[in-house]
Amino acid sequence: MNGTRIGCERLRSKVMSAEDAASLIDSGSTVGMSGFTGSGYPKTVPLALAARIEAAHAAGDPFRLRVWTGASTGPELDGALAKADGIEFRLPYNSDPIAREKINRGEMEYFDMHLSQVAPMAWQGFLGPLDTAVIEISGIRPDGSLIPSSSVGNNKTWLDRADKVILELNYWQSADLQGMHDIYYGTALPPHRVPIPLTRSDDRIGETAFRCDPDKIVAIVETDAPDRNLPFTPPDDVARAIAGHLLEFFAHEVAKGRLPASLLPIQSGVGNIANAVLTGLVDSPFEDMTAFTEVIQDGMLDLLDAGKLRMASATAFSLSPEAAARLNADMGRYRDRMILRPQEISNHPELIRRLGCIAMNGLIEADIYGNVNSTHIMGSRIQNGIGGSGDFARNAYVSIFMTPSTAKGGKISAIVPQASHVDHISQDVQVLVTEQGLADLRGLSPKQRARLIIDNCAHPDYRPALQDYYARALAGSYGLQTPTLPGEALSWHQRYIETGSMR
Amino acid sequence: MNGTRIGCERLRSKVMSAEDAASLIDSGSTVGMSGFTGSGYPKTVPLALAARIEAAHAAGDPFRLRVWTGASTGPELDGALAKADGIEFRLPYNSDPIAREKINRGEMEYFDMHLSQVAPMAWQGFLGPLDTAVIEISGIRPDGSLIPSSSVGNNKTWLDRADKVILELNYWQSADLQGMHDIYYGTALPPHRVPIPLTRSDDRIGETAFRCDPDKIVAIVETDAPDRNLPFTPPDDVARAIAGHLLEFFAHEVAKGRLPASLLPIQSGVGNIANAVLTGLVDSPFEDMTAFTEVIQDGMLDLLDAGKLRMASATAFSLSPEAAARLNADMGRYRDRMILRPQEISNHPELIRRLGCIAMNGLIEADIYGNVNSTHIMGSRIQNGIGGSGDFARNAYVSIFMTPSTAKGGKISAIVPQASHVDHISQDVQVLVTEQGLADLRGLSPKQRARLIIDNCAHPDYRPALQDYYARALAGSYGLQTPTLPGEALSWHQRYIETGSMR
Ligand SMILES: CC(C)(COP(=O)(O)OP(=O)(O)OC[C@H]1O[C@@H](n2cnc3c(N)ncnc32)[C@H](O)[C@@H]1OP(=O)(O)O)[C@@H](O)C(=O)NCCC(=O)NCCS
Ligand SMILES: CC(C)(COP(=O)(O)OP(=O)(O)OC[C@H]1O[C@@H](n2cnc3c(N)ncnc32)[C@H](O)[C@@H]1OP(=O)(O)O)[C@@H](O)C(=O)NCCC(=O)NCCS
Repeated sequence: MNGTRIGCERLRSKVMSAEDAASLIDSGSTVGMSGFTGSGYPKTVPLALAARIEAAHAAGDPFRLRVWTGASTGPELDGALAKADGIEFRLPYNSDPIAREKINRGEMEYFDMHLSQVAPMAWQGFLGPLDTAVIEISGIRPDGSLIPSSSVGNNKTWLDRADKVILELNYWQSADLQGMHDIYYGTALPPHRVPIPLTRSDDRIGETAFRCDPDKIVAIVETDAPDRNLPFTPPDDVARAIAGHLLEFFAHEVAKGRLPASLLPIQSGVGNIANAVLTGLVDSPFEDMTAFTEVIQDGMLDLLDAGKLRMASATAFSLSPEAAARLNADMGRYRDRMILRPQEISNHPELIRRLGCIAMNGLIEADIYGNVNSTHIMGSRIQNGIGGSGDFARNAYVSIFMTPSTAKGGKISAIVPQASHVDHISQDVQVLVTEQGLADLRGLSPKQRARLIIDNCAHPDYRPALQDYYARALAGSYGLQTPTLPGEALSWHQRYIETGSMR
Repeated sequence: MNGTRIGCERLRSKVMSAEDAASLIDSGSTVGMSGFTGSGYPKTVPLALAARIEAAHAAGDPFRLRVWTGASTGPELDGALAKADGIEFRLPYNSDPIAREKINRGEMEYFDMHLSQVAPMAWQGFLGPLDTAVIEISGIRPDGSLIPSSSVGNNKTWLDRADKVILELNYWQSADLQGMHDIYYGTALPPHRVPIPLTRSDDRIGETAFRCDPDKIVAIVETDAPDRNLPFTPPDDVARAIAGHLLEFFAHEVAKGRLPASLLPIQSGVGNIANAVLTGLVDSPFEDMTAFTEVIQDGMLDLLDAGKLRMASATAFSLSPEAAARLNADMGRYRDRMILRPQEISNHPELIRRLGCIAMNGLIEADIYGNVNSTHIMGSRIQNGIGGSGDFARNAYVSIFMTPSTAKGGKISAIVPQASHVDHISQDVQVLVTEQGLADLRGLSPKQRARLIIDNCAHPDYRPALQDYYARALAGSYGLQTPTLPGEALSWHQRYIETGSMR
């Protein structure tokens, strides 16, 4: 602390307390914060801002903000601001439980976006102006450029677009992060867009630090607060079974000559199941793998350590406290095998399609035709958001979705007659996996898909009811491309709402 | 006819009758046909094939084929083969009424695909081998390369992948087509994919003819049968109102500095409304426009003639008989202002995102949150297919969907509580237009979207019922991110099925 990481002399005078920095943010303004999963989000300014908002509310002043981020953040940001009732509008992704509750009580407007589109849409202008950026960094170089922290997210765009910039300089982050990042400055609005010159996961196409007009920097707040990601639960039988089915599928595809022996760049979504699959890959026969993904979880670190993964490209770390400590202790060594990029690049459709990613994402529910709901419980209550799953699922070489076949102790079937909300249409769901089995849906018509999904993926407790629904739909549907009984298709959800069980 | 367009001497011996060519196609095989909308599809071989299949069926032989195309085709292909009950499996798009009926009676498996993905997925291998390609061309050059016809579609891929090739050389097609096409040979499977070097709609990045191994060519059938597209209905009040709302929106965006004065490359979907909007642009203030789209309809030709459109890039013509005659009569002049490309390129997400297309597509129904159903009537009966709408909607600079607010003489509301099938998730539906008005949904949360859609787009006859549903959902929904009553959400569809009206 004490300015030792501020390499640029003229910026030293901007150091101030979190409270003073927070006082520079006005009610009604739009704030672009850093942060992607529990990494690289500002930790002290939002807390001070929450205190300021609570004081304002106590004084009868309806202080509220519009908050933009990279994706989810930590409790000191979304949790504290939501608790203070300080967020009027939020984009593009949230997994904080307090904010989730506010959203689902209708007390906070939430715009759930494809993560690759946040930066370009901010440039398009219809989201309105960005008043203040609050960005965690890990250092300031002598030339005033900013060394990113443990996530990149939309920081480049927030720094470029905001009228004023508040920096949180975090000494908990490793000084060895310097050199890991790849900040691409070649984006533009059409008609000036050009091809993104990246053809392999490990290509570097940008700079290692953010450019930032020093005149826009109104405050630097120093801190050493740690990132706060939740620990992963150790893989249980269900997770291990899902991983097993997937590894078998990969081996089969390699044997058929449809995947190279080192696979194709892996994308692995958020959540425990995704992490378990990565852990499963540690003992797989695949070597020299790469990742082109959104977040680097514990399992990725294990794969790197095991020498199975050659390199990983992402926009953020999403590590348990233990894994974060492991990474931080050895950052100098890991740095050469990891690249953190803006989320506009990590999730770019152009790059995902070009590289041919193998996308593996979690879900809330899938229907018998393979439409996937990643976001809305019972069609209405948002869990997190679509995140980058749409960027990857539509453009992947193989788009895989995975889930336990039931939720809430068996009271909910993850396979339903009709998805209560759709995030991924059947065209974008090519392989569906539960602990029961795997359905390879590629090239199949809806009716062919339904048979496979019910037989291979549904839990035996729900399989007869699905078979019964499907048989009746086949007999009585308005059209037979995708047999459906609209009067009954969402009745499982209605039953759960009324009785607490889908049975 | 009589071989005058066969520039390559050694191929002349392959000329034969349609019947002889059709006899080279075996039951159970997979046939890749040319054709995209009613353009450039083979016209005599499929008819001969249908006769052969009918004869086989009469003799007790269950002759059936797997048929792949570019998109929809004409009555001589899909109509005749479906009528003969000769298609077991069909991809990726169909608008033929006889085939539609077979599909919706469950007598034909139909795999409805994103049109940009057909060629890459054929290369991936999971669709199985391609036995025969049947491709309409407009000429053969001395070096044996093939001059494409009025659509490009997946022809390059079918020619490359098929074991044997049957050519239909069509003398009805203008000889001046030569030089219009741009066949890009730079695609590959990952990990060998590279950036597509196209940065403007009018860039040429390929060759003007198809390469084809002459040893694979087993037959050449000569014909002069015309393309058969349906005429467009002249714009009525509803279409004119939709066009009017859209032109006002464009003018507003230009005034705000969010669109250039020449707009951005236009994509215009299939159907009468899309065509009417193009016609509306003829009298607009926008100049020097370009199109990067899937099909060139009558309206595009009008825009070119009016000097409003500088050039149009597409994969096919989709012209009324009158407009096709107009084009054919003057092909030499039009040729320099049009480019036909493989559909993998015309619809490529990389290019659509880079160019920043303004996507305008039709729909079957939208729900109050702006999820769009482009394909399934009452959730089950397929109309056509998703076509390229997903390629464009997800990657567009502005993704617009438009529809009359009611269908079937007012018995159906195009705005419903919940879409009975989802092709375009709310994130990919940024502007919704009916004759009632336009809803600019960009940057809005679901609840904000619902109010706009009900107020601006729904028909007054259905608005109170939508308001009532929404108010009750707000009061009684499980979660309030996207208020939904699963027990009632699809009841409008059920009512229509039972009573013939949603009222
Ligand atoms: C879908 C998603 C929530 C699953 O996450 P996960 O950690 O693998 O799954 P879990 O089984 O722990 O489920 C999370 C919660 O949803 C609940 N849930 C899961 N399926 C459910 C269902 N069908 N009905 C109701 N609740 C369900 C779980 O019970 C759990 O609730 P709890 O926290 O109250 O116990 C997560 O993958 C996600 O947010 N996806 C969207 C974004 C995304 O894919 N990002 C990656 C793109 S790069
Ligand atoms: C959705 C789509 C069918 C609309 O086409 P259109 O010509 O503008 O619309 P129309 O109003 O003529 O509708 C076509 C038919 O669907 C029916 N229809 C439309 N909306 C309906 C609804 N909500 N419920 C029931 N039927 C409906 C119409 O009545 C008409 O039926 P008919 O032929 O029996 O009279 C068409 O745009 C489509 O196929 N889209 C998907 C593919 C696509 O977007 N391609 C372009 C991408 S580049």
